[in-house]
Amino acid sequence: MSLTTSLERHKVTLLHALDMDDRQQLNQQLPELRSADIAEILHDLMEDDHELRARALLDSLPIERQASVLGHLHDEEQLVFTAVMRNDKLQAVLEEMGSDERTDLFKVLGEDRREVLLRRMAHREREELMRLASYEEGTAGALMTSDYVAIPMGITVSRAMMRVRQTAPDAETIYQLYVIDEDGCLAGTMSLRQLMVARPGTAVDELMIRDVIRVSVETPQEDVARIVARYDLLAVPVVDEQGLLVGIVTHDDALDVVESEATEDIHKGMSIGQLEDGVSRVSLLSLYRKRVTWLVLLVFGNLLSGAGIAHFEETIAAQVALVFFLPLLIGSGGNAGAQAATLMVRGMATGDVGVRDWGKLLGRELLVAGSLGLTMALAVAPIGVMRGGEAVALVVAISMISIVLFGSLLGMCLPFVLDRFGWDPATASAPLVTTLIDASGVLIYFSFATLILS
Amino acid sequence: MSLTTSLERHKVTLLHALDMDDRQQLNQQLPELRSADIAEILHDLMEDDHELRARALLDSLPIERQASVLGHLHDEEQLVFTAVMRNDKLQAVLEEMGSDERTDLFKVLGEDRREVLLRRMAHREREELMRLASYEEGTAGALMTSDYVAIPMGITVSRAMMRVRQTAPDAETIYQLYVIDEDGCLAGTMSLRQLMVARPGTAVDELMIRDVIRVSVETPQEDVARIVARYDLLAVPVVDEQGLLVGIVTHDDALDVVESEATEDIHKGMSIGQLEDGVSRVSLLSLYRKRVTWLVLLVFGNLLSGAGIAHFEETIAAQVALVFFLPLLIGSGGNAGAQAATLMVRGMATGDVGVRDWGKLLGRELLVAGSLGLTMALAVAPIGVMRGGEAVALVVAISMISIVLFGSLLGMCLPFVLDRFGWDPATASAPLVTTLIDASGVLIYFSFATLILS
Repeated sequence: MSLTTSLERHKVTLLHALDMDDRQQLNQQLPELRSADIAEILHDLMEDDHELRARALLDSLPIERQASVLGHLHDEEQLVFTAVMRNDKLQAVLEEMGSDERTDLFKVLGEDRREVLLRRMAHREREELMRLASYEEGTAGALMTSDYVAIPMGITVSRAMMRVRQTAPDAETIYQLYVIDEDGCLAGTMSLRQLMVARPGTAVDELMIRDVIRVSVETPQEDVARIVARYDLLAVPVVDEQGLLVGIVTHDDALDVVESEATEDIHKGMSIGQLEDGVSRVSLLSLYRKRVTWLVLLVFGNLLSGAGIAHFEETIAAQVALVFFLPLLIGSGGNAGAQAATLMVRGMATGDVGVRDWGKLLGRELLVAGSLGLTMALAVAPIGVMRGGEAVALVVAISMISIVLFGSLLGMCLPFVLDRFGWDPATASAPLVTTLIDASGVLIYFSFATLILS
Repeated sequence: MSLTTSLERHKVTLLHALDMDDRQQLNQQLPELRSADIAEILHDLMEDDHELRARALLDSLPIERQASVLGHLHDEEQLVFTAVMRNDKLQAVLEEMGSDERTDLFKVLGEDRREVLLRRMAHREREELMRLASYEEGTAGALMTSDYVAIPMGITVSRAMMRVRQTAPDAETIYQLYVIDEDGCLAGTMSLRQLMVARPGTAVDELMIRDVIRVSVETPQEDVARIVARYDLLAVPVVDEQGLLVGIVTHDDALDVVESEATEDIHKGMSIGQLEDGVSRVSLLSLYRKRVTWLVLLVFGNLLSGAGIAHFEETIAAQVALVFFLPLLIGSGGNAGAQAATLMVRGMATGDVGVRDWGKLLGRELLVAGSLGLTMALAVAPIGVMRGGEAVALVVAISMISIVLFGSLLGMCLPFVLDRFGWDPATASAPLVTTLIDASGVLIYFSFATLILS
């Protein structure tokens, strides 16, 4: 991504100060910049192969700032910067990070490096880090932080308040508090707002909400994000199989998940597999692999259209003018079908469309696609008359209505059918749907042509 | 959307209690349910045409709960419920709502109803409501709430804390505080966390961050959401042209924006216009309109392919077997091109791809698309040999590489070109890209055929 003008200006002065070793300028300018912005400047420097200067810039920050900036960088960038750090410095950086970012950075490091760092840690830290690193990517466990404020059951509001103040420097959020029983199980939750307006002598047990919205460590991240969105939560607590509170997922991480899941869905809609990184950074081999699978599969799907054409070779040879309308008809059907499929797939992903709505939606699609087909037939009929006379126009118009209607219904139903058989509805991508409609369209068109023209 | 099993069970007992007029059961069960869940039960009842029961359910809630539930409903549902409310009750409901939800509900009401309600309000309330309702949909102004905690400059931490406690019941969030100067201009911000750990006698001016990340009332909502995401904010302050603080946009609203913007982008990728509501609720006429525009435009685009075919009619008549490979070749090119376009459009939407990265990305696409074309040519060549001999196989293989390469480059460049001319890059939808590639593919294929076979 390109820098904004104001960041570009910051970058220029920073680099100048670095090259001149102007500590005063650096110390004045760096605290003004936010970590996300410094990370972007570093990213920009790396892209232009100014690795040494990027490193010098990072080095000129205090350790806790370095930790925060590193947390904003991508995996392979983190690897580049940490590769040249001494172990004691890397350890210090890890200690300054929140538990979720620490775990992410730890996972990026090589096996050997991890071993060395683990050996330098205290037993408890090591256990926690290994536990957090063990959860599968894409689950609540991998997303959560263990830096939350836990309040023991039975204490008073004023003691709980003291606890909040003590935990404040390290906790990811102090605005939602989690009450745990003597076993460590999640017993309730309350907001800091509730605590602040409550009488100091009240027991937290009286204030807390007992019916806590929670997720398990294995809950897929898109479900976690959907729960945060649905109930407007600041954070959602994560429990393990025994109901023990093990972490929280905060609103900012939920927001990132919604964004990245949307990207994944958009790519899936074009039969592109899940990329490990942004399109401008992911390796070429990976980009090739994620695109080639379905493209080649669909080559064979497209042979169906060819087989259909071969079947009608006589009709085509007798009236070559028919070929004129072929791309138009199958293209239009494919477009309408891809629209229908996309509307369903996205509706299912956002929870707007449920499997049980299938019947109602089928009726709606019948009406809309029928009207679309009719409109497009009217648009194409005059051209049919011009190119091949009235009989050809009739064939083309009838084919258009049929192909658009059939294509739309196919596109609409496919996601439900896939879901029914346990597949991801998003597999009903535009390329898959259009390929299927191409083949059906060939059959429909030349069948009508043979019927009407012979 | 279908209810989950647990909500379905709640619905059954609630309806039973309603029909039996069992107040005790209602009073016990309703407080356990969250507003989002009650809203979903109401929505479900409306879909099954149980409007009277839905109304009775809403009526059995306390007024502040009704306000909260109404805030979760869609526009036309809000209209149904409020249509039968008496003016004094509707006024009470509006008063219980947060300012952003109040404005949204107000905008749904008819002109007459709005007049009546405005006349019943105090002058200040009326002014504020009319101001909030005046901002254009899709901007920070339309999204923001005016229920934030404002701290006057110059007061101490302990006085600020008192102010927070006083405002707590009405503010959307009390966790981020905004310091305003005597003119009402935004002078700084601080978190409640900062305030809590600060010494009571300190002046807030010493604590506050002066370089506040802010947006203007006219900032598009997707930019607001991106800023909230980038800096992990709880809320972002909104200022008017004079720099006066007029509202805040909170994290939960930013999350909803990311979700709805993603839906819009996904629909746009299939040439579907922006729907006013979910696909299962939007009117059939609207759905037809949002789909038909581009479909009909692309019918004429597809005529280009037809014209290409007409131009090569002799070549085709001489070797009808060539038609066999036509859908396959243009389909494959279209798929690869749509992939390339989608990768760019999404990359630009998330800020991952900038216009300045164009050159680098072109080089990458050249390599990836070249490899894709080669792979697909290898897959299709044997079939070429089988169907039409070695010469046809050569034509098909060369055409495949050329069409996939050309299609991918076209798909990749189109979003940048559109952006350059001030259009939305997302106009480079899959249907548009595939239609363009269909036409080019016809020309490429039959040109090679004429060249090699004649």
